[in-house]
Amino acid sequence: MNRQVILSSRPTGIAQSENFEIQNSAIPNIKNGQFLVQNHFLSVEPAMRGWIADTNNYAAPIEIGSVMRAITVGKVTQSKCPQYPVGTIVTGWFGWQEYCAASPDMAIRSVKETDLPLSLTLGILGINGITAYLALTKVGRPETGDTVLVSTAAGAVGSAVGQIANILGCRTIGITGSDKKVKLCTENFGYEAAFNYKTEDLDQAIAKACPDGINVYYDNTAGGISDTVIKHITLNSRIVICGTAAISNWDNWPQGPRVERHLLVKRACMQGFVIFDHQDQYEDTITILADWVRQEKLTYREDITMGIESAPDAIAGLYRGDNVGKRIIRLI
Amino acid sequence: MNRQVILSSRPTGIAQSENFEIQNSAIPNIKNGQFLVQNHFLSVEPAMRGWIADTNNYAAPIEIGSVMRAITVGKVTQSKCPQYPVGTIVTGWFGWQEYCAASPDMAIRSVKETDLPLSLTLGILGINGITAYLALTKVGRPETGDTVLVSTAAGAVGSAVGQIANILGCRTIGITGSDKKVKLCTENFGYEAAFNYKTEDLDQAIAKACPDGINVYYDNTAGGISDTVIKHITLNSRIVICGTAAISNWDNWPQGPRVERHLLVKRACMQGFVIFDHQDQYEDTITILADWVRQEKLTYREDITMGIESAPDAIAGLYRGDNVGKRIIRLI
Repeated sequence: MNRQVILSSRPTGIAQSENFEIQNSAIPNIKNGQFLVQNHFLSVEPAMRGWIADTNNYAAPIEIGSVMRAITVGKVTQSKCPQYPVGTIVTGWFGWQEYCAASPDMAIRSVKETDLPLSLTLGILGINGITAYLALTKVGRPETGDTVLVSTAAGAVGSAVGQIANILGCRTIGITGSDKKVKLCTENFGYEAAFNYKTEDLDQAIAKACPDGINVYYDNTAGGISDTVIKHITLNSRIVICGTAAISNWDNWPQGPRVERHLLVKRACMQGFVIFDHQDQYEDTITILADWVRQEKLTYREDITMGIESAPDAIAGLYRGDNVGKRIIRLI
Repeated sequence: MNRQVILSSRPTGIAQSENFEIQNSAIPNIKNGQFLVQNHFLSVEPAMRGWIADTNNYAAPIEIGSVMRAITVGKVTQSKCPQYPVGTIVTGWFGWQEYCAASPDMAIRSVKETDLPLSLTLGILGINGITAYLALTKVGRPETGDTVLVSTAAGAVGSAVGQIANILGCRTIGITGSDKKVKLCTENFGYEAAFNYKTEDLDQAIAKACPDGINVYYDNTAGGISDTVIKHITLNSRIVICGTAAISNWDNWPQGPRVERHLLVKRACMQGFVIFDHQDQYEDTITILADWVRQEKLTYREDITMGIESAPDAIAGLYRGDNVGKRIIRLI
């Protein structure tokens, strides 16, 4: 049997468990050119909110009745495709299901870092780590000594951004949503300071921690956090727009303080980044990140739930802030 | 006698004529290292709003009781400074007054383009033209075939942006505030299309004129115009924040639709530009612009008022949209 998580209805806002259904079907037969992937780990991303929404985004919305779109990692158990022979460890767009009849265009890459845990392929050595590295270096363009402020600082992307900025010689300041995560930021992810935006006066805390202003703001939130941070950017600063986690619905275009005057006066740059534009740089980036992981310069947290039954509530849980670390569903 | 325009009180919002006073004083004596400039033309800039405001900006606010800060062009009539001998045509920060005891740090440059009208030094061959060229090429980074949309398209900066983008091989679309200016845009400044935002449905007009979206949005306005334009930006587009003319007061941070999701989905870049960071490139830029003016590739409009008496109302008039073309006050 192949158990599959189907998007059964379209949410307004964040997808909840009732928007999904688990269906049983037969393990699919593969055709010529295809290979059968048995999924070991399924990824859960904040970006799934956007993939599910029926609004203008960077990818077509997932159709109602289809398997939930997701990156996974698994093993090839049958193959009619020479590029992916039986036994290959492969990551790709194989969806929230146990088995996938895959074609090469659905694969992202064969996993070569088999000395490291397989789950890392969905986190620090996957989209999250690559996003952190490329968005920080290409859009954030940090220079030695810069102050880099990161929102969702303990998250799968944020925690990597903080550490990479550190490795590149920057001071890092984190904003996160619980005292537990604040501690994780300063004790494990190398942040010089971190603040709980739910309990602290962010404006004062940032002013004190960043007396010379912020050179790079790596933002995963938008919303009130950004409105406070932007008051502290310094001349020629760069704002990386990597996610908008604080805004649950963009259908009615939400309002906020206008950024134009701040960007003008500070000659600042605010730029969006979508990782899927940069696939040609995945391999090189993973090589760098895997070396840092092996050298223990780069660490990570995982929040692994067991079984496909945990999938339907996984996105909602992410937005509730249930998890500490990269949320992954383990099947095997 | 030296007649001077003094900032006598600080406005909330746009400076009106009652915020200024014309005072008479003696023509100043120059000290060693100084030179006396007799102003021929005084410049009027939208940016003066920001220089006058007592809020965070890129320059210190003008003090109450002091001569209104302005770029002017004039002739050196006395000199104790070998760099600026008597007879030199010089442009610089000599203020809204008839005579200025100037030191070299107040000068921007000696004017070499004496074959062209002197007033151009304050417009197309001054801050406006240089801003248009450098902000467009450095932040807008237009490529051949790009669609470039310009707000305040018939203004001193906007009209130059449209023409320069044209020279660089782009399609140009203008937004302006009267039918007269729309006509000027298409008949004189080479815009393929232009729209009066006060009478037309901008959203529909832009959709029709830019079916493939906007690659470069050169913005001098912020506000409702930008909120409409941003819906039409295309992938990897660049938004140049050069001015915020549509927002008269930033003291109570004005609200607007949040830009983050648009920038993210479109991987777009929104960046502020202040010309005074780029003084090392003035000469090279003026050389390019002056050649285009001589070749009649680059044209301009001036709105020249006579006499220092016209200065106090000049900024307010600019924001009322009284002028067509670069507003300049002629003294001689």
